[in-house]
Amino acid sequence: MYPVIEWKDGQVIMLDQRLLPVEEKYIVHHTHLDVAKSIKHMVIRGAPAIGIAAAMGIALGVAELQDNPEIKNLAVLATKFKDIVSTLTATRPTAVNLFWAAARMEKIYQLFKNDYFTLRSELIKAAVQMDQEDFAINQRIGRNGQKLLKTGDTVLTHCNAGALATAGYGTALGVVRAALEAGKKIKVIAGETRPYLQGARLTVWELQQEAIPVTLITDNMAGLVLKKDMVQAVIVGADRIAANGDTANKIGTYALAILANYHEIPFYVAAPLSTIDTGTVNGEHIPIEERDPAEVTHFRDQMTARPETKVYNPAFDVTPASLITAIITEEKILTPDFGCAIAALKGLKQK
Amino acid sequence: MYPVIEWKDGQVIMLDQRLLPVEEKYIVHHTHLDVAKSIKHMVIRGAPAIGIAAAMGIALGVAELQDNPEIKNLAVLATKFKDIVSTLTATRPTAVNLFWAAARMEKIYQLFKNDYFTLRSELIKAAVQMDQEDFAINQRIGRNGQKLLKTGDTVLTHCNAGALATAGYGTALGVVRAALEAGKKIKVIAGETRPYLQGARLTVWELQQEAIPVTLITDNMAGLVLKKDMVQAVIVGADRIAANGDTANKIGTYALAILANYHEIPFYVAAPLSTIDTGTVNGEHIPIEERDPAEVTHFRDQMTARPETKVYNPAFDVTPASLITAIITEEKILTPDFGCAIAALKGLKQK
Repeated sequence: MYPVIEWKDGQVIMLDQRLLPVEEKYIVHHTHLDVAKSIKHMVIRGAPAIGIAAAMGIALGVAELQDNPEIKNLAVLATKFKDIVSTLTATRPTAVNLFWAAARMEKIYQLFKNDYFTLRSELIKAAVQMDQEDFAINQRIGRNGQKLLKTGDTVLTHCNAGALATAGYGTALGVVRAALEAGKKIKVIAGETRPYLQGARLTVWELQQEAIPVTLITDNMAGLVLKKDMVQAVIVGADRIAANGDTANKIGTYALAILANYHEIPFYVAAPLSTIDTGTVNGEHIPIEERDPAEVTHFRDQMTARPETKVYNPAFDVTPASLITAIITEEKILTPDFGCAIAALKGLKQK
Repeated sequence: MYPVIEWKDGQVIMLDQRLLPVEEKYIVHHTHLDVAKSIKHMVIRGAPAIGIAAAMGIALGVAELQDNPEIKNLAVLATKFKDIVSTLTATRPTAVNLFWAAARMEKIYQLFKNDYFTLRSELIKAAVQMDQEDFAINQRIGRNGQKLLKTGDTVLTHCNAGALATAGYGTALGVVRAALEAGKKIKVIAGETRPYLQGARLTVWELQQEAIPVTLITDNMAGLVLKKDMVQAVIVGADRIAANGDTANKIGTYALAILANYHEIPFYVAAPLSTIDTGTVNGEHIPIEERDPAEVTHFRDQMTARPETKVYNPAFDVTPASLITAIITEEKILTPDFGCAIAALKGLKQK
């Protein structure tokens, strides 16, 4: 299995997802600034993977301070740490896992800030652990979610909520993997996911690596595919789930939910609890990142519209809870009323 | 104004729409086989433009026979004419204008088949006339349709139902042009229209030529754009309208109609009467062309998914009449029940 992200010998190694499926290339990151740049420029993407990258970036940033003579000065360390965290969290505004990971690293900082070398090793340990945990969490999401699928089903998915978006295994595609492991025959239809083509470039590639049957469509074919009964379930990931169940995910998810609803096909969100942000009451409060117009007007060196073209390029949209059939988490499958279900689950976890 | 298609000195000249917006290049066609190839490979596209191209192709095919010593033999001419028509109608199965144009040329053939040279000049005259008529029809569609828009409105459109899809002026974009000519301030949002990108490459380019305000989005952004009240009307063209109003149009139109419906935004189809096929009772009977997987896996020389990827690539879908607010024709604006409205209109025309 290709490692999506790895901590190795004091460096952070990432598969450069921008080059897939043409080239399989790894980038070695020596500084937290490099890691931040890679998150921003989508070398790595997908909410859980971004969380892990941010954690490793913070650990790397603190490790970079080892030769700083002032590092035993608590005020200096505090400033440096704050800067490192800000740099990593400023990369992408929508995925809450970024902030969740930063908060987790912050807790470790508070515990060990009096001893730089312990702090450094504890941060590294935590980042590596988050990576391993994420894999295990995805497997649990998969095992819960696969109960919703029966043999012979075809799953329509959007973007890449797969191994490449996580520590491995995936959330939406984790559900597919778990169903296959349970002996069910499952096929996937992948929406190509313009403008960045995570569906075509990443989901198709990832499934092809394991010979999982996948058919590629353009996003605007989803309506027809649902009408023709070619799909029994839509499963997507999430970048942030608000307290009421409203879900921010890759642009196009909202339209897909409306289409699934219209055709009475279940629409599932598969995501770890770390994606649920109870601090955000509903979808209206989730910040939506807008990205470079060139993502729409160009594909690599090829122009699809003149560079001066006015473009609207939101990277995410919000699907209201009312259009979601169930949210599949590592703990359980949540069903409406999601507000209650989330409150109960988070309450339980806090005990 | 760039000519989309033109009969000139016994040749058919077409703007090569495959190269837009990068290059503005014209192809000169000397034979009907060349014209057929250009229709098939989408040098020209859009139902009305395809109809004109087919008519010119047929005229060209008959003109090619002028040095054939057997051409005064009626049986030979009949066989040749049938071959020419078959070659042109076999290019694309969905757009009914192709068959409508062929039927119109067939009538002229029946009238003048006894005199080859008169037949030849009558066919050329008819093809050129169809081109001119189409422009006038589009203006009438525009004048009817613009009543549905008010100043300040933004129109969301899909694919290219513009000057480039017709003899000029356009159907859906003709409505926009007529509204602008009536002094209304209108903006356009163009869906890029994967996989062939007619929205990005053609609609945006065409509107930019006349400085009509246009914003480009990817198709999967339509849901969000409608939700945010950025659009007051959706207007699309049509490749074939069945007797009950079901409308085949570029893939993605069906999904757009569902999204418009969900957001209670009017969804209009703008098309000439020649697009209405009363011989097809409903949308289920409209043949849907599937095109080359490479359109989805590659953009020009750039790979978006591995060439071996399984692809589903229908070029059109059918929007049921129930999702259409009105059909704008050159005669009048049709409203539900479309079956009755179409029957009444066609009955009227037959008198």
